[in-house]
Amino acid sequence: MLKIRIVAVGGIKEGFYRDAIEEYRKRLGKWAKTEIQEVAESSQISDSARKREEEGESILRAVKGRVILTDIKGRRISSEALSEILSRSALSGESEITFVIGGSNGVSDRVKKAADDIISFGDITLPHQLFRVVLTEQIYRAMSIIAGTPYHK
Amino acid sequence: MLKIRIVAVGGIKEGFYRDAIEEYRKRLGKWAKTEIQEVAESSQISDSARKREEEGESILRAVKGRVILTDIKGRRISSEALSEILSRSALSGESEITFVIGGSNGVSDRVKKAADDIISFGDITLPHQLFRVVLTEQIYRAMSIIAGTPYHK
Repeated sequence: MLKIRIVAVGGIKEGFYRDAIEEYRKRLGKWAKTEIQEVAESSQISDSARKREEEGESILRAVKGRVILTDIKGRRISSEALSEILSRSALSGESEITFVIGGSNGVSDRVKKAADDIISFGDITLPHQLFRVVLTEQIYRAMSIIAGTPYHK
Repeated sequence: MLKIRIVAVGGIKEGFYRDAIEEYRKRLGKWAKTEIQEVAESSQISDSARKREEEGESILRAVKGRVILTDIKGRRISSEALSEILSRSALSGESEITFVIGGSNGVSDRVKKAADDIISFGDITLPHQLFRVVLTEQIYRAMSIIAGTPYHK
């Protein structure tokens, strides 16, 4: 079974977003083992570059398998393209895939270099918490496209 | 005060999405009067074109002022571009603006023709309920950009 890991900087404060994420993670259970690993935000550091470096080190320690970084400036993809990324990973025998959501100041160059792919869902800036809901839903949608279930129609 | 109306086909079943939308609507209160008007989904009609027509008639009865249709195939915009749409509307003396979210089968040509602008947030397909959260958040973000508050940073 595919293992999907989401490595994200910072926590989820809003209960309704936690519930939404948990709902998709639960539904994903039939197709993949999904794990969310939160990395502490370097909130005591005021310098953006140093913040990115420190958070970047924590991110790199947490990633496993194929690494997909999400970034507003990344390669623009559709839901179908995400399902192709996941099915290709599974077909090539990779059992683990990690999606990275950076902090509010972005991620370090080391994280960008470590990424196998950098993807973007669009030009809008979403709050970190809501973006995590969208990513989890898109992973669920991608798996449902692969499985051929009617959810994505 | 600007009046923002969201006309959407179908209801919100998930409590966590209702809570998320209500949270942004509440926060928007300091800058705009936001009203959400749900239009019934023509669920008894199996033919997509007829469904779009019937839902389209209900949408057109509900819109007021400047009409912005959201559509995955629309003009791709950023959060900043949305804030410009809203500030231009306010500056030109328009007191009402309507955002339209169509049904799962899209909207009729009549609705497309009635729209002053057709916008898209990206290439991914989101469930109707989650898209409504994203739109409400983006309207809140756009207003906070206009107001110059630190939310959007």
